[in-house]
Parts: sequence; C-alpha cells; structure tokens
Amino acid sequence: MNRFVTCLFLLFSTATFSQSSDSLIIRKFYEESFVNGKTYHWLGEICSTIGPRVSGSPQAEMAVNYLKKELDQLSLDSVYLQDVMVPHWVRGKKESAFIVNGKEKKAVNICALGGSIATPNGGLKAGIVEVHNFDELKALGKENVHGKIVFMNHPMKPEFINTFEAYGEAAGFRWSTAMKAGALGAAGVVVRSMTLSMDDYPHTGAMGYSDTIPKIPACAISTIGAEALSKALKENKNLQFYFQQSSAILPDTLSHNVIGEIRGAEFPNEIIVVGGHVDAWDLGQGAHDDGAGMVESMEVLRLFKRLNIHPKRTIRFVGFMNEENGGKGGEMYAKQAKLRGEKTIAAIESDEGGFTPRGFSFNGDSLQSEFVKKNRSLFMSYGLSKWEKGYGGSDINHLGDQGTLLIGFIPDSQRYFEVHHAATDTFDKVSRRELEMSAASIASLVYMLSEYGVK
Amino acid sequence: MNRFVTCLFLLFSTATFSQSSDSLIIRKFYEESFVNGKTYHWLGEICSTIGPRVSGSPQAEMAVNYLKKELDQLSLDSVYLQDVMVPHWVRGKKESAFIVNGKEKKAVNICALGGSIATPNGGLKAGIVEVHNFDELKALGKENVHGKIVFMNHPMKPEFINTFEAYGEAAGFRWSTAMKAGALGAAGVVVRSMTLSMDDYPHTGAMGYSDTIPKIPACAISTIGAEALSKALKENKNLQFYFQQSSAILPDTLSHNVIGEIRGAEFPNEIIVVGGHVDAWDLGQGAHDDGAGMVESMEVLRLFKRLNIHPKRTIRFVGFMNEENGGKGGEMYAKQAKLRGEKTIAAIESDEGGFTPRGFSFNGDSLQSEFVKKNRSLFMSYGLSKWEKGYGGSDINHLGDQGTLLIGFIPDSQRYFEVHHAATDTFDKVSRRELEMSAASIASLVYMLSEYGVK
Repeated sequence: MNRFVTCLFLLFSTATFSQSSDSLIIRKFYEESFVNGKTYHWLGEICSTIGPRVSGSPQAEMAVNYLKKELDQLSLDSVYLQDVMVPHWVRGKKESAFIVNGKEKKAVNICALGGSIATPNGGLKAGIVEVHNFDELKALGKENVHGKIVFMNHPMKPEFINTFEAYGEAAGFRWSTAMKAGALGAAGVVVRSMTLSMDDYPHTGAMGYSDTIPKIPACAISTIGAEALSKALKENKNLQFYFQQSSAILPDTLSHNVIGEIRGAEFPNEIIVVGGHVDAWDLGQGAHDDGAGMVESMEVLRLFKRLNIHPKRTIRFVGFMNEENGGKGGEMYAKQAKLRGEKTIAAIESDEGGFTPRGFSFNGDSLQSEFVKKNRSLFMSYGLSKWEKGYGGSDINHLGDQGTLLIGFIPDSQRYFEVHHAATDTFDKVSRRELEMSAASIASLVYMLSEYGVK
Repeated sequence: MNRFVTCLFLLFSTATFSQSSDSLIIRKFYEESFVNGKTYHWLGEICSTIGPRVSGSPQAEMAVNYLKKELDQLSLDSVYLQDVMVPHWVRGKKESAFIVNGKEKKAVNICALGGSIATPNGGLKAGIVEVHNFDELKALGKENVHGKIVFMNHPMKPEFINTFEAYGEAAGFRWSTAMKAGALGAAGVVVRSMTLSMDDYPHTGAMGYSDTIPKIPACAISTIGAEALSKALKENKNLQFYFQQSSAILPDTLSHNVIGEIRGAEFPNEIIVVGGHVDAWDLGQGAHDDGAGMVESMEVLRLFKRLNIHPKRTIRFVGFMNEENGGKGGEMYAKQAKLRGEKTIAAIESDEGGFTPRGFSFNGDSLQSEFVKKNRSLFMSYGLSKWEKGYGGSDINHLGDQGTLLIGFIPDSQRYFEVHHAATDTFDKVSRRELEMSAASIASLVYMLSEYGVK
C-alpha cells in the first residue's frame, strides 16, 4: 500500500479520548513503552544470551539472577528471591525415531514429552497402533495394545476461532495417553504435536504418570511426521516404530521466584500482583512462552518509575518459577502470601504469548464489577475490546482462595501454537511493537487498579 | 503456558451468538476458511513461484495469468482481464552506497526509490547535508544545498498507536524531498527508510518529480545506515557520500486488472467490489503488500461457491494493477464502471497486510448508516471491534464519485512497517491463521452487504 497523500485515517487515539488525567496517563504508558521501552532488550537477553530454561537447569538460575539484577536497577522499594523446590527433568541427548517398514527406515521428528522417562538403552522398537481419541484406545483393549506403541493422532481443530479452545480440546491427549495406554500394557506412546501448523517441529509439553500404572516413555511427533506415520500405517498396519530418548527425572532442586515491588503511597497493604513465568521448555528460547509475559510485567514497574507515578496501592512483579511442569512457584507464592496475611486485591498474569493486545479475562462474576464497567471504554481506544469472563492464569490461580481478583491478559491467539513448546519459539518471532504495546496495556490496567482498587 | 486441565476460557464464538441464520453463515465462512481455505496456498504460489511483480514486469503478467487461471477454476459467472496501460519502472542492477570519510569508506544499505532516475554512470559522489524536515531544508537554502546530496533523516514516530498514522506523518518526505531538494540545486537525495524497526533493510516506495524542477536521483537508506550516516556527519560534516543506482523509467506498458464475479440472484445490477492489488514492489515478494489482500479477496468468491451461498447482489473480485506507482488500475476500473453505467453499491479494499483482523473503516458519514449500526455487533464476536470513519483504499477511491460506500479492511497495524516495501516482505512473514481469519472477515461483511445492501 502506498497511501499517504490523503491520510484520512481516524486518529482514534486522540479523537475518542476524554482529557481526563487517567486517559492521559494511559497514553503516556504507551508512548514511553514505544519510545524507551526495555521489554525487547530484556527479552533479547533472556532468549539469546540465556536461552531455554527448564526448571532446575543452570539457565533457569541464570535467568533468575539476570532478572534480579535488572530489577535492582529500577530503584524499586524491594527486590528479592523466594525459595521454591522444583522438579528437575532433563531431556538428555537428542531423540531419534523411525518408521520401520520391513527393511525400509523413514526418519521422523520427535521429542520427549516433558516429564517422560527414557526409552530402554538402544531405544524402543515395537508394533504401533493408531488411535484418535480415548474411546478408540479403549475399544482396542489390552489384546491389541499390549507390548505395542500407541500413536495418538488427534489433530487440534482448526475451526475454533480462539486457538486456546482448540488447545483445550486436544491437550488432554498429551497429558493422559501414557497413563491410559500404560494401563493397557503399551510399551510407549507417540502423540501428535499440539499445533495447528503443518510443519516438521515436534512440540513438547507436560505429560502425566500415575503411581498405580506402569510408566512408559512418551514423545511428541511433528504434524508432518504424524501424517507420514498415519499414511504408512494405512498401507501396512504391521509396520514397526522405533524411538529413542534418554530423558530423566532428577531429584527436586532449589530454585526461586523473582519478586520486585513499588510500595503503595496510600494503601501499601493492598497488593496488585503482575507476572509471567521464568521457566520455559528447552526446545526453543521460551520467547513467547513466557519470556514475553515476564518482560511485559517487569516493564510495568519500569513505566511507573520512569513516569514518576506513585501508585496508591502496592504493585508487585512476580517472575514465577516452574509453571510448565509443576507450578511450584505459583503454589509457593500463594502459600507465603497467605502465611504473611497479605491482602492481594488483584493478580494479572501474562502467559499467552507476546502478540498484539486484545483484552483481559476476569474470573468469577467480576465482569459485572463496577471496576470493569467503569474502565472498559478507556481501553477500547487501544483495541482492547475483549473483556471476558474467564481464566486468570495457572500461576496466579493459587491465589483464588484469598479473595483476589484474577485477571488474564489476552493477546491475539492466532499465532501462538505455531511456536508453543517448540524449537520455533525464538526471539525473532516476537514483534517489538506488539510486545511494547502489550506491556503498556498491562501497565494501564495495573494503574487503574492501583488508583481505584477493584470495586 | 501449560493450562489445559481446567480450560475455563469463555467460548465467545458460540456463547454470544444469536442463532440467526446470518450468524450461522458467518460462522461457516470462518470454519471453511480455516479448514479448507485456499488463501495460504495461493499466496505461496504468488510469492515463492512468481515473486516480486512491479507494474510492467514479466512477473506482474505471470501473476495476472495465474490469478485468472485460479479464478477460472472457481465456477464463477464471469472471469476476465481489463486492459490498462501502466508506468514501467525498473530498478536495474543492485545499488551500492558508501559514506566516504577521507580515505575511509563505509558501506551502507540503500535502494532506489520507486520512480527515481539513475545516478550518472559510475555513481554520484558529493558532500552531504542532513536535515530532518522541509523547514530545515529551506533554511539551508541554495548556497548550502547546491551540488550536494540531501540526507532527509526523518524517523517515523514510534509513539503513534496506529502505525499508519506514523507512516502518514513521515511518508511525504519520501515523496517530495527530491522535488524540494532539486529546486535548490541538490545533486541527489537519500531518505531514511519508512519503518519503525532498527534494521539494515532499505524500504522503497513511490517518489515524485515535477516537470518544472530538475530530476535528481533518490534512494532510501536503512535505519541502521541512517543512524551511522548521521553519527558520521556529527563527527565530520565535510564527509562525502557516494551512491550508485541504474534505475530507469521505460515506456508505459499494457497490463491488466483481473476480474471475476458471482452474479447476484435478486439484484444483479447492484455490485459489491472486493479487491487488493496485483503489483508489488520488487525487493521482497509482496506477501503482505499486497499478496495477502488479493488472495483474501479471491477467497471471498471461493467461500460463497464452496458453501453454495447465492448472493442477492453481484460480488466482484478485482485484482488491481499498479497501485504502488501510478494507481492506473484503480483509475481504469472506475472509468469503465462509469462508462457502463454500473451501480457499485460498495467497494472493500484490503491493502494493509495479512495480519489478524481488527475491523473496517467507512468513508463519509456511513458510520452512522443503518447498515453499520445493525451489523457491528455480529462482528464483535470475531474481534472486529474497530468500525471507524476513515479511508477506503487508494484503488477503490476512484469510485468515490459514483455513490459507492468505500470500505477499508483493517488488520492489526503493529507489524506492517517491519516489512512494508522491503526485502523482508516475504511469505514466511505471513501467519496462515491470520490470513484465513481475515478472508473470512471480509467475506462476512460482503455477505451482509449482499443480503441487505448498504442501507
């Protein structure tokens, strides 16, 4: 497009705004984030210098230390680490897998699912049976599953508008297939990757075991690999599958939540938490999941300091550890808050990627609250039109029984599962503008909460 | 993020919809586009197989023929080409440029601006003066500009929320500096690229000459190059700049608009135009600008045919030629429509990239029309919250005096100027989901227009 001579665009940002001081302050958050924002710099360091940071890994602790160092430079009222013991799973050496059709071997791309045990030394080779859901698995029964590898080929459904609905519909197959197949005597599990893209990247993610069911190794296969395997099975249902992974569960490890806060000028005991998670799966760089949410949340504090805004209520950044495979950081944070008798009036989590901002979801009946009714229109001017009843986030969810308003930040969902938990989740997939706009959006909501509380 | 056990997301797509047949049809547009959509395939062919397609180039005609072939397969009521003579500018061999500081030479990345003449054989070397706007240029006057290269270093302003506002504020410097500097006797012009990114890609785009002012060669320099040049000039204002480009303006060439239509079942003489532009600048692949808008518009027709929806009014796809450097396709289309006495009730243009959909802009006072009032809420469920007074688009703008409602499709603007008119505008920068969602959004608006007209 080449239009500029007659630039008739509605200048919505200036035209529809009242001249109230609140709207002017919100405008400043956006301007400062776009002009001098630190999110993109911080994310670059976390992704490119530190890289992937599974709970318990050296990189996870490097990230903790880096975040603390950066927070220390913001002249906050306090910055500290909070101890938390976390699971420590390691992937081991790169996995390999083949469709074995007589003497023919076709390599496919897999990765161990997070939390999975290894295959036996030398790998696992067995017959393979394809199913698309748990009903089909059950119908096969022990006689058809015992000793075999179960291939759970359940695609995410493209017809959902919100891609998180498609994920919600499909991700249980990643979590539970090893248990369901293990109970039938299966030797291993291959799960189709949770993505709407047709590409050759396997997507990892947490899977579960039960103490009462034999543990079997589980991996994810790329969507291209899943299609190839399904096609090969249609041609020869007696073919074999081979995969090798050397993942292991090590003893729990001491790690940390990272915390920094600005004390409220009028109501210091009323706390607003804003955060994302520090840990990230190891295949990519954890750029969208959840480096983005973490740096957006830190930027909230920087924006208040830089603009010299003294919030009425306390604003506390929390970088949660271990969201991906245990949630121990969120659990510990809520436990300590309760022990100290803190009053957390609201908590905002950003953990759906660093995409262009769309709105917020509020738990319970809070969508009817005066706060939401009063403030919604202020944010419409920035395209934040979604104010929905919904989930806050898995880290802040532990605060749910402390009377806290739980708020999830909603970025646009269309691109998230292109990169989620895969090697593609890298810094270059993040748009600087989208990240900066998200940070300003969250800061604006935090400001309104800090000025007026949740009523 | 790893949430799936308690998937509490509000299923907005199903929850807030009435069961009216209109909303069900709109839902089907989205589902069909996501599940069987052709946009991504078409765009891949246009970008990767055909590539850049400046007006008058062999690739532009390859694109015309490809689009016609694809339209022919959609069982439309008519498909045809419309002749139009277009300017034919060629870049020639790759440009080169250096900051020359005594014996030191530092290479910087430039590209000829669209429409610029070449430098003299062997390139142009001269002193260089930096300005940031036309006031500064005027203040320098002939005595400081004559024989020199003018460096227009006007950055796009990051503080605008809508990046098109920033473009609107800055792009006049690309268009007019060669004229303003030429009038003062300058030897050439270097313009800072129109982008909010700090990277090393020059962004081309149209520039203007006047018949009464000497024509001088004009190029764009990457933002990194602009920063380096500005820094070097601060250290030594007497340094020289060298650039070489062999661009040329050839005689006008016969080209074509590509047209395909479904005749209206009840009001065939009431026409709804939907389109994007076929031509694209030559540095990248014209993926976002405007391959995306073109395939989205073609997909509108495919969706109607595939879903067996017989529109009441005629729906006409137009692939406009020569939007980037002349607008001759849009001009010819409007001229022919007027000659035939056609009644074009509405025209929709998609030419702001293939990003996630945000809404529509309507010309004149049409935002107050019954059509807009009635239909806005239907689209809110898909995140199309922007219904603004604004510009339709430069190709459909020529229909403005024919009583046509002009509508611009608005995708999210944050990423557009990362790729606009640069080598980065390639197929891999387009998200399949975002493209498919945009096509369904446009089809939905076209459907409502075809059912109810513009009243």
